[in-house]
Amino acid sequence: MKKIFEIKQIGVIKSPYEDIAPYQPVASDENEFVIVLDKEYKEGLQNLKKFEYIYVFYYMHKIKKNVEMVIKPPWAKGKKVGLFSSRSPVRPNPIGISVVKLKKIVENKIYTSGLDVFNNTPVIDIKPYIKDLDEKSNADYGWINELDDNEHFSLHLKGIPHTH
Amino acid sequence: MKKIFEIKQIGVIKSPYEDIAPYQPVASDENEFVIVLDKEYKEGLQNLKKFEYIYVFYYMHKIKKNVEMVIKPPWAKGKKVGLFSSRSPVRPNPIGISVVKLKKIVENKIYTSGLDVFNNTPVIDIKPYIKDLDEKSNADYGWINELDDNEHFSLHLKGIPHTH
Repeated sequence: MKKIFEIKQIGVIKSPYEDIAPYQPVASDENEFVIVLDKEYKEGLQNLKKFEYIYVFYYMHKIKKNVEMVIKPPWAKGKKVGLFSSRSPVRPNPIGISVVKLKKIVENKIYTSGLDVFNNTPVIDIKPYIKDLDEKSNADYGWINELDDNEHFSLHLKGIPHTH
Repeated sequence: MKKIFEIKQIGVIKSPYEDIAPYQPVASDENEFVIVLDKEYKEGLQNLKKFEYIYVFYYMHKIKKNVEMVIKPPWAKGKKVGLFSSRSPVRPNPIGISVVKLKKIVENKIYTSGLDVFNNTPVIDIKPYIKDLDEKSNADYGWINELDDNEHFSLHLKGIPHTH
């Protein structure tokens, strides 16, 4: 009854992170983030540049830990939360998603804002981020708001450099 | 070199749609949308209720058409666009994503706003929609804005009933 599906790599993410991926990194002059699609998918990128933001779907291939249903997220000061109320990469299906700013497209290469993934992470899909479908202006921070130190946590979420 | 990954079903979406899934449906008294997670994942739902919105990831199991890199989206009046600049379900990996409002959680069941999926669509992940990460207030409509009839298209996107 438990069904298994196959998904395939359609490209790769080039990032500066070989060993440790930062939480919400920021693209800069030194840091370049490029999604290199396999050439056979190049035509599928037509019109994408018209969008300000895109969703990048990737397979977190370096995750080796055991999946647990209750976890302690980093920076959450030991708070325990359900796995599905977190963005932990250690999930039943290690599929990651990021909303990134689209900078430019050159042939089969998509240049984006920062992506917190290891170099050579497999890409499995690209979708446009469409205002009415995906932008929820009354979205919130859920349990993160209840942390004593939620402003600090928010700096991590936003990728804003700060001292501890 | 082309890598294949396995993903597994972790639950199922119950929707009113057996044959034709509408584009952006609206939950109502008659229409109920429930994500039923397999029982082994129930603990992973702790704290999720604190979020206003969640991402639902699903595997579009009924899609049988051939994948094409340039497509004509419905309601776009024959305009041709690249597949990755559309939300077409006919993709190299038929993984769907929806941002939905979380209504309530009862045991392993998540009650949500409308989901444009067929009844019994396999669920592969649930993630919280977090304000700073996922809400982009300067998001746009990309090529959709260039359609002569973009206001009409927008009604479809928003799931607002209207006459043609």
